Amino acid sequence: MADTAKKLSIICFSGDFDKALAAMVLATGGKAFDYDVNLFFTFWGLNILKKKKGRRPGSGSFLQKAFNVMMGGRNNLPLSKFNFAGLGPELMKMIMKSKKIKDVEGMLQDTIALGAKIYACEMAMNVMGVKKEDLIDEVTDIVGVATFIADAEGGQVLFI
Amino acid sequence: MADTAKKLSIICFSGDFDKALAAMVLATGGKAFDYDVNLFFTFWGLNILKKKKGRRPGSGSFLQKAFNVMMGGRNNLPLSKFNFAGLGPELMKMIMKSKKIKDVEGMLQDTIALGAKIYACEMAMNVMGVKKEDLIDEVTDIVGVATFIADAEGGQVLFI
Amino acid sequence: MADTAKKLSIICFSGDFDKALAAMVLATGGKAFDYDVNLFFTFWGLNILKKKKGRRPGSGSFLQKAFNVMMGGRNNLPLSKFNFAGLGPELMKMIMKSKKIKDVEGMLQDTIALGAKIYACEMAMNVMGVKKEDLIDEVTDIVGVATFIADAEGGQVLFI
Repeated sequence: MADTAKKLSIICFSGDFDKALAAMVLATGGKAFDYDVNLFFTFWGLNILKKKKGRRPGSGSFLQKAFNVMMGGRNNLPLSKFNFAGLGPELMKMIMKSKKIKDVEGMLQDTIALGAKIYACEMAMNVMGVKKEDLIDEVTDIVGVATFIADAEGGQVLFI
Repeated sequence: MADTAKKLSIICFSGDFDKALAAMVLATGGKAFDYDVNLFFTFWGLNILKKKKGRRPGSGSFLQKAFNVMMGGRNNLPLSKFNFAGLGPELMKMIMKSKKIKDVEGMLQDTIALGAKIYACEMAMNVMGVKKEDLIDEVTDIVGVATFIADAEGGQVLFI
Repeated sequence: MADTAKKLSIICFSGDFDKALAAMVLATGGKAFDYDVNLFFTFWGLNILKKKKGRRPGSGSFLQKAFNVMMGGRNNLPLSKFNFAGLGPELMKMIMKSKKIKDVEGMLQDTIALGAKIYACEMAMNVMGVKKEDLIDEVTDIVGVATFIADAEGGQVLFI
C-alpha cells in the first residue's frame, strides 16, 4: 500500500520557535511529496495558532489567564536553546530574513495553503484556557486524541 | 497488513510532567483503538516509574545518588516550560483537577490497566543508579534497546 | 513488504548530550537488526558533527559567529536537564566511563562504522553559519528536507 507510507502526522507539542520551524519545514516538505499531512497542535504548540500575536490575558480562570500570559503568542515563541529573554529568536529571525528563509508564520501560511490539516487539541485548550476564538480561522477542527490517532493510522508520526 | 499499523511504541525519554502527560494520553488513546502499545522509559523518563514519589538518595555510587536526588520522583516532575521551581506543575495539576482531567499518575494507572507494556531501559538505569526495586511493580520488564526495536518493528514510533 | 518496516530515520534536532546519546543508541541498535538507518542532523544537532570539539567563532556573519560560539562543539554538548554549566554532562560521562558505556563520540563512530547514513541539513547550516569544512569528513551528504523525506519514505521516523 503506497498510500500507507504517504501520510505524515506531526504532534506539535513544543511552542519553541526553532522546533515549530522544523515542524513546518517537514509539513511543507511532506506536502511537496504528496503526503497527507496532519498537524495536531497541543500544549505549548497552541501558541503557534494564536490569532493575537503578543501576550494577552485571555479568558478563563485566573490560573488559566496566568498560563496564557506566560505562554505569550505567536510573536513571543522562544528558542529551545539560547533564548536570552527573547533575543535569541530575534537574532535567528534576522539571519533568516537576510537569507530569505521564511519564519514560522510564513511557513505556517504555506503549510495551510498546501492543504495540511491543522488540528487543535481540545484537552490542552481546556487546561490552558485557550478558546476557539483565540485561534486563527484556518484551524480545521478542535479534536481529541482519538481523532489524531484515527487520522494518523498507517502513516508516519512525529512528536516535536 | 492492518496489524502493522496498529502498534504504537513510545520512548518516554523526558521526565517533564507535561510531556509525560502527552505520552500517557497517546498510550491510553492507542489502547482505546486496539493498538498494541509499548512504553519504553529511559533517562529522565524513569522518574515516572519510581515507586517512591519524592526525592531520595537511592542506591549506587555517590555520583549516581547525586543524579537520583536531582531527578526527584513522581511527585517532582517539572514542566518543560514555566516550571518556576515546581510551581508551574502544581498550577497545572490544580487546573486539571478542577476540570476533572487525570494527572500523570492517574493516566499511568489507566495505561497499565489497559494493557500497555511498560519497559524500563537497562542502560539508563545503570547510568543513573536506578534499581529494579526503585520502580513500581507494574513494570513489565527491564530491557535493552534491542528489545525495544524488535517490539516496535512495523509499527509507529514516537520519541517524547 | 518486510523492507518497509526495516528503515529507521532519525531527525537529530537536539544538541543535548543525553538526547544525542539516545539517538546513537537507537541508530546502532537499528543497524544491529539490519535496519537501514538515516540520521539527519539539523539545528543544534549539527554540533554533534562538528570537527573541532570546542567553541570557536567559525565563519559567516557576526550573528552566525555568535550562534556558533554559543552552540559550542562536540565537547560542550549540554544535558537537557541538570546541565549546571557543563558539570552535569561531565558527571554523566564519568559514570558512563566507569560502567564502560561509550559516550556520544564513541557511539557516533560506531554508528558510522555500521553504515548509517549521516546527513547534515543544508538550511540549518545556512542559518547557523556552519560550513561543510566545519563538519567531520564522515558526513554522507549535505541535503535538504526533500532528501530526508524521500529517504524516510515507508519507514519509521523519530524526532529527537
